[in-house]
Amino acid sequence: MDRIKLAIDTLGGDNGAEPMVVAVQAAFEKYDDFDITLYGKEGELNDIINKYGLDETRVRVVGATETITCHDAPVDAVRRKKDSSMVLALTSVKNGENQAVISAGNTGALLAGGTFIVGRAKGVKRAPLATLVPTRTGDCLMLDCGANVDVKPEALVQFAKMGSIYMESIMGVKKPKVALVNIGAEDEKGNELVKQTLPVLRQLKDINFVGSIESRDIVSGQADVIVCEAFTGNCMLKLYEGVGRMFMSEIKGVLNQSPKTKLGAALIYKPLKKHLKRFMADDKGGAPLLGIKGLVVKIHGNSKNAEAESAIYQCRNFIISGVNEKIVKSFEQV
Amino acid sequence: MDRIKLAIDTLGGDNGAEPMVVAVQAAFEKYDDFDITLYGKEGELNDIINKYGLDETRVRVVGATETITCHDAPVDAVRRKKDSSMVLALTSVKNGENQAVISAGNTGALLAGGTFIVGRAKGVKRAPLATLVPTRTGDCLMLDCGANVDVKPEALVQFAKMGSIYMESIMGVKKPKVALVNIGAEDEKGNELVKQTLPVLRQLKDINFVGSIESRDIVSGQADVIVCEAFTGNCMLKLYEGVGRMFMSEIKGVLNQSPKTKLGAALIYKPLKKHLKRFMADDKGGAPLLGIKGLVVKIHGNSKNAEAESAIYQCRNFIISGVNEKIVKSFEQV
Repeated sequence: MDRIKLAIDTLGGDNGAEPMVVAVQAAFEKYDDFDITLYGKEGELNDIINKYGLDETRVRVVGATETITCHDAPVDAVRRKKDSSMVLALTSVKNGENQAVISAGNTGALLAGGTFIVGRAKGVKRAPLATLVPTRTGDCLMLDCGANVDVKPEALVQFAKMGSIYMESIMGVKKPKVALVNIGAEDEKGNELVKQTLPVLRQLKDINFVGSIESRDIVSGQADVIVCEAFTGNCMLKLYEGVGRMFMSEIKGVLNQSPKTKLGAALIYKPLKKHLKRFMADDKGGAPLLGIKGLVVKIHGNSKNAEAESAIYQCRNFIISGVNEKIVKSFEQV
Repeated sequence: MDRIKLAIDTLGGDNGAEPMVVAVQAAFEKYDDFDITLYGKEGELNDIINKYGLDETRVRVVGATETITCHDAPVDAVRRKKDSSMVLALTSVKNGENQAVISAGNTGALLAGGTFIVGRAKGVKRAPLATLVPTRTGDCLMLDCGANVDVKPEALVQFAKMGSIYMESIMGVKKPKVALVNIGAEDEKGNELVKQTLPVLRQLKDINFVGSIESRDIVSGQADVIVCEAFTGNCMLKLYEGVGRMFMSEIKGVLNQSPKTKLGAALIYKPLKKHLKRFMADDKGGAPLLGIKGLVVKIHGNSKNAEAESAIYQCRNFIISGVNEKIVKSFEQV
């Protein structure tokens, strides 16, 4: 097998290039079947690479003179800032130099670039942003969480297939349970999109479709793949994040209320924080944009090396397990 | 002023008629400007009324031979079960015998009945189900949480006005901040519905519109009225409920982990539970169906007397403060 080639956009995140390089160093030690190209400020990147002593046969630097920031209008930025680290990294996937891109930059620009520059894979109608969402029994994959609003039933059906393949190939879930987000369990419930999509999903033989799911049951882990259009998905994901952060902060407040609660806090705060951290929906790391010719993984703007490192493994698994080939093949069967 | 007349459907809830009667008794002691008609099983209701010694000049019983259960198909049930407590209660509002209905029964049937039997108020396009949602700074009103999916911008604009009037008149919030649920702060974000609705809302002079709100900011209390169509609203509400319940349960689990955490729990569990209870989204009590000729308040299937009692006060305030007249008037101004 050829060596795996990954691109990392080192600009646009809040913590600069250093955590990215640290992540690469750690990942290099774990696997030796892949190489990395870092896109960003050339001098700075070379300095950090030297500082951490990375294997220079496996890492390459491509200098960029522009940066897409979080304030840039996404589509416009991707079109205008041709020499930005993000556009250069995306273009390298389009040209076949790399197979995947990791970026902590502007989400909208990354989604726009993934579709316009890298391009959708054969047969894919819409490329969804998928996110791992914590549940009581593990993580489920929710898609679309931010890329495509106002979609047709065909798009949701494709999301269901892509999500199922991803959970099986990357996360190792056997026959992932796929559910469609709805506002009730009965088939007459839902909006037009859901009512039209349900019967199509029920007929599919290559996924394990379990029917409608109400959002309250997502967190109890009743399904592995949660399908919805991006407006609903994004609203649910961000609400989950907001409620989680609120609970953590309110708990802290109560524990600081009195000498008595402070005493109790000394005994329970550490295990409580450690346990509940798992349910912070914005702590899950890389969100893949699926259905494009390659892979784009969005990590958080404020992500540190651990998240970047896990995104590298995600990309590596994605390529080794041939997820894209499986997706294209599953679409041909329709 | 004429005496206020309220109807209570005592069937269809999980806890039977008794909590409803207890609620009426408590409310009678607090205010003496209203009378109640209870719809349900005649003999049973009379027995409970005698048991609690209710003022018989203020309470009346209407017997019903049918019950709409949670398993009934909503529209069908409302059409067929003419002698059910729910349909009789709704019809009493239509006929002007009562001004409002409280029910713990089948939500879908209640919404269908509210629109088909009671009927929409003059000028109202769609009647939204509104719900009080806990935030860090108090409660906000989210609407629509379950009645109308696939709506047009005009409907959302009306929801914004109704919600603003409700929060000002019933909850006493001065110049309520009204926000539209969106997946980003910028105006180019959103689906077609949101993009078309935003400019109309910005032009309204009779509400305090503050723009788009991302769902994560709902819980921090950035707006008093949260406007969305019912698919998104229902998904967000139920996810909030689910995440809240999950946190409570996971916290309990951690506190029981070891002798050390159990010791800590003895010091903090009570204040923690008491404080976090406020954030249980499904504990907020009556959800009003707004924009109909009268008022329908849905309480939880498992609600106890406290929720029913608070729903009685909500109905009383609604009628005294003339919310419906204000709504109709605000729609004439457009």
